Amino acid sequence: MIPVRHLLKAQTRAAIRLVGTAAPNPSQGSAKPSSNTKYGAAAAALLAATATGGAIALAESKTEESKYRKLPKQKYPSPETPPIHPKESHHSDLNNPPPRPDLPTIPLEEVEQHNDEESMWYTFRGAVYDLTFFINGHPGGTPRLLMAAGQDLEPYWEVYRQHLRGHVVQWMEKYRIGNLSEEDAKKAVEGITFGDMYETDPIRDPNNLACSEKPFNGEPRLDLLTENYLTPNELFYVRNHLAVPDIDPDEYVLIVKGKGIKKHKFTLEDLKTKFPKHEVVTTLQCAGNRREDMHSNEHQIFISPHWVVGAMSNAKWGGVKIRDVLQYCGMDVDAMALGKLEDPKIKHLQFESYDTDETGFCYGNSIPIESAVDALGDALFAFEMNGEPLPRDHGFPVRVIAPGHVGNCQAKWLHKVIVSDKESSKPWKQKSYRGFAPDINFEEDLSHWPPKRLDQAPIVLFQPVTSLVCNPPQNSLMGAKDLTEITVKGVAWSGGGRGIERVDVSIDGGKSWTAAELYKPVEQKMNRQWAWTQFSKTLKLPEDVRKRLARGEQVSLDITSKAMNSDFNLQPETMEPYWNARGVCINHWYHVKVRNYFFVRRVV
Amino acid sequence: MIPVRHLLKAQTRAAIRLVGTAAPNPSQGSAKPSSNTKYGAAAAALLAATATGGAIALAESKTEESKYRKLPKQKYPSPETPPIHPKESHHSDLNNPPPRPDLPTIPLEEVEQHNDEESMWYTFRGAVYDLTFFINGHPGGTPRLLMAAGQDLEPYWEVYRQHLRGHVVQWMEKYRIGNLSEEDAKKAVEGITFGDMYETDPIRDPNNLACSEKPFNGEPRLDLLTENYLTPNELFYVRNHLAVPDIDPDEYVLIVKGKGIKKHKFTLEDLKTKFPKHEVVTTLQCAGNRREDMHSNEHQIFISPHWVVGAMSNAKWGGVKIRDVLQYCGMDVDAMALGKLEDPKIKHLQFESYDTDETGFCYGNSIPIESAVDALGDALFAFEMNGEPLPRDHGFPVRVIAPGHVGNCQAKWLHKVIVSDKESSKPWKQKSYRGFAPDINFEEDLSHWPPKRLDQAPIVLFQPVTSLVCNPPQNSLMGAKDLTEITVKGVAWSGGGRGIERVDVSIDGGKSWTAAELYKPVEQKMNRQWAWTQFSKTLKLPEDVRKRLARGEQVSLDITSKAMNSDFNLQPETMEPYWNARGVCINHWYHVKVRNYFFVRRVV
Repeated sequence: MIPVRHLLKAQTRAAIRLVGTAAPNPSQGSAKPSSNTKYGAAAAALLAATATGGAIALAESKTEESKYRKLPKQKYPSPETPPIHPKESHHSDLNNPPPRPDLPTIPLEEVEQHNDEESMWYTFRGAVYDLTFFINGHPGGTPRLLMAAGQDLEPYWEVYRQHLRGHVVQWMEKYRIGNLSEEDAKKAVEGITFGDMYETDPIRDPNNLACSEKPFNGEPRLDLLTENYLTPNELFYVRNHLAVPDIDPDEYVLIVKGKGIKKHKFTLEDLKTKFPKHEVVTTLQCAGNRREDMHSNEHQIFISPHWVVGAMSNAKWGGVKIRDVLQYCGMDVDAMALGKLEDPKIKHLQFESYDTDETGFCYGNSIPIESAVDALGDALFAFEMNGEPLPRDHGFPVRVIAPGHVGNCQAKWLHKVIVSDKESSKPWKQKSYRGFAPDINFEEDLSHWPPKRLDQAPIVLFQPVTSLVCNPPQNSLMGAKDLTEITVKGVAWSGGGRGIERVDVSIDGGKSWTAAELYKPVEQKMNRQWAWTQFSKTLKLPEDVRKRLARGEQVSLDITSKAMNSDFNLQPETMEPYWNARGVCINHWYHVKVRNYFFVRRVV
Repeated sequence: MIPVRHLLKAQTRAAIRLVGTAAPNPSQGSAKPSSNTKYGAAAAALLAATATGGAIALAESKTEESKYRKLPKQKYPSPETPPIHPKESHHSDLNNPPPRPDLPTIPLEEVEQHNDEESMWYTFRGAVYDLTFFINGHPGGTPRLLMAAGQDLEPYWEVYRQHLRGHVVQWMEKYRIGNLSEEDAKKAVEGITFGDMYETDPIRDPNNLACSEKPFNGEPRLDLLTENYLTPNELFYVRNHLAVPDIDPDEYVLIVKGKGIKKHKFTLEDLKTKFPKHEVVTTLQCAGNRREDMHSNEHQIFISPHWVVGAMSNAKWGGVKIRDVLQYCGMDVDAMALGKLEDPKIKHLQFESYDTDETGFCYGNSIPIESAVDALGDALFAFEMNGEPLPRDHGFPVRVIAPGHVGNCQAKWLHKVIVSDKESSKPWKQKSYRGFAPDINFEEDLSHWPPKRLDQAPIVLFQPVTSLVCNPPQNSLMGAKDLTEITVKGVAWSGGGRGIERVDVSIDGGKSWTAAELYKPVEQKMNRQWAWTQFSKTLKLPEDVRKRLARGEQVSLDITSKAMNSDFNLQPETMEPYWNARGVCINHWYHVKVRNYFFVRRVV
């Protein structure tokens, strides 16, 4: 009845905590909260909720309410102004907490007692932190934070190495309350092993460049994106929030339930045979594409992955229309699409997926019901990608395709579909992808959750117009001395079905522009332009550049593009005024530098 | 049967041309082309077409084909590089052609013969120009150019004073072929009177600031826009392309015809009684709002009006849904909206209006049929504005309201509605509102029509996200010495139904930002957010500003805002990279400067 092999597998692989004696394995048996488990109470509650297919939303919102409480037992208060690493420190040094002889030594036994939402302490390389306030602030979710409470972070960060970029450890220094003795510091890591739930992830193409390994997030080599209009499956960017489930298609079940419909379960075969097949070409992009561009010493981004540029790809998806399935389950989708029927209980379509974190907390998201019932919206339960069954990295056997919507809405490894009056309460909906004003940062504002002025930080649903120069490749070399022109190629896209109406290209960094030729081979209707536009333009090199090339002199070009969408919205020139703490919807001009030879550094 | 009083009036008032003998008045009788009329052949054909309600589109596209022909009889070729006025010239000097003793003297009689599309000569203040190539390039349309061919421009520009801004006369110098004798120069203006078709225009509110008088284009005082959520009718910006018709509501007829429907005529009473009334709050903006910002010596804009900033307002419109009327006429609008019915002949809804130019050529435009049949699109034939009958300036008695669309689509004084496979062929659709790349200019490219690469210059249908600081007013003074904070108010809007999700405000010119509070009292659905958002934020003055104020020192603030829409598109910082020859969709940050006292220029 719940043929979810991967779930068992994932949990077997998950967080095994050994301090002195082995903790009970929560994946075995009933997963009821057990008094002798070292898992935090909230995590255990979440596990139970997952196992019974129940109230994850409730559990999540309960922890959201708890916020930061000043605990009376603040025996070791953290100093107001912690010392900051000197700027000249080597990068890897930044991952080591600095010596703090001013702080007390705290016994490991005492740390271990602070392991639930009432008080959460952690150790790392001899330092002790009180991160109780952070209960809802962690971008990776509350359950994981609880899972590691009272323990050392080293084994966890062995898996989640994205924490080891210096600024995370630096930030924690503010919440440091003490040190471990040398003996305890050794003991803290000796006792723990942390299973790697990512070990059964699929093998990826080497041209799909890893941006983070666990979970895997990979972007295609940018110069390959203009080779095909449809991105080959193995190159299509991969955005995983968790480990990849391993699902037996014969045992796969999709559950559709909620307000206004009759609960149904569909096998993969049901989906393929009960509904007409529909295909749509659509571009997907991660809301955080180009996040690394927003990360600097002055303005740091505390969310992963730090995409470089290529978290955008285009494919033809095959499946069944979500509206057809909802209609089958009893929803009058035509009346709703025509505005003849409105029900305040039917506002959102929530998705829950088969991928879970180490505590069993599953991925989830939602789309507005309008997007699902829209007769021209092309929203699918997809089982094919470019004519092949979905690859495992892209949601095998069934995922959501909600054209025009941000990538995270388009849940992979789809398990449950729930009609609701509310958006998904999952952190991937409520926390990770919000557009904060430039004066809001993680360190001061977002580590306490919910932050002030959350109403001024909309959740990303659609993404702005963007374009990327793919060829020539970044930092490539121009050819012969007698070069007179250069061909610039790239891709452009705008969320929400807005089309690309013009792309201007420049080889002088944006001083002068001319319109490129556009390639959009798929017929697309107004405001239903889901697929990207490729562009190309051969530009004459300016007279002075040609002369300098001919003389063998050093020449470099700054190639960039700016697209305009069907709303005449366009890409801003720079990033700074649009900086946002989550690093979402980054669409300033992307610059590609090319030159005519390798620069050799002269050794004096 | 054609109860259009205003048409007769307009034509009675219109272009009376007197050179020696009076030309026949085209508004009387059959309006057939007459061999002894001095009107050009194309204009006469257009008049005939208008009178028979017929093939204006054909006539227009015929002239579009004719383009620029090198005529063999170029007796007076214009020099390649004409002299340019010295930069230091006083502005009004620029409206006088410079002395050109290098050019031949051409007899007035000879000029008068060049009065049709084969050859079009004009005189102005003693200069003679051959503008034959310009036949389709004039933003005001071909018929008017033909109307004045062979004549002096002075009396025409007495009415259309927007030509007298220096750069127009400067540009024409390139096409100057000779001079008139002093005697002929006097004679050229003596013989002509040009009726003023604008003399029965309504009287406007003094707070509706005229940007051009004929036709009237007026923008509200910006600081008044945040006083009400619905802009009062008398303040609502006025964008007229032609003179305002004076229509008797009892004689008003709306004709609906074309592909796939049965032709119908509706009186105003029919519209009010046969269909349910529907109201919608929507913001209108002219595509050219803030055009003056794009006009500089280096990059001139040759299209009028040069709006300053306020061509945007918000009102509640009442009328009947266009889709209801089309359904009544036999169109299966529900099937079309649901994508169940598609007909390649039914692609656009063309509108023709009761306002005409001096030659009888009427205003026209179109919207995609999707916008008309969209069940949630709220497109109306509107007869009310903020609960009152439409004011004359806003289309009395009936206009189109197509929420989310650019202002020019929303035809006023609506006469005919035509279902077609094509967009309107009128210049207001095909020429005026296109987004050209920055390297395309009027002088070199657009004065010959159609220009190269027209396919890279999309027609504006929807407008990008924008916001305007309305209060404090531009160049206003801050109050007391003990001022500690300042309240910034404004309006923000995005075309195509995209909502405003966040507005950031800055008082240091954009160095630092914080999110404002948003006010959107009208409930609006996703992607149907037609009405603007007002914003407000009280900002603390920085410490140094407060100190300087207290000391009575000179202080100025640079207040600006940037809005983000529901696609997370945002306003660019500067205008330059987005300059376009038609001056459309201008949405860079709008800056308001305030200071603490009048600067008195010191006289040494």
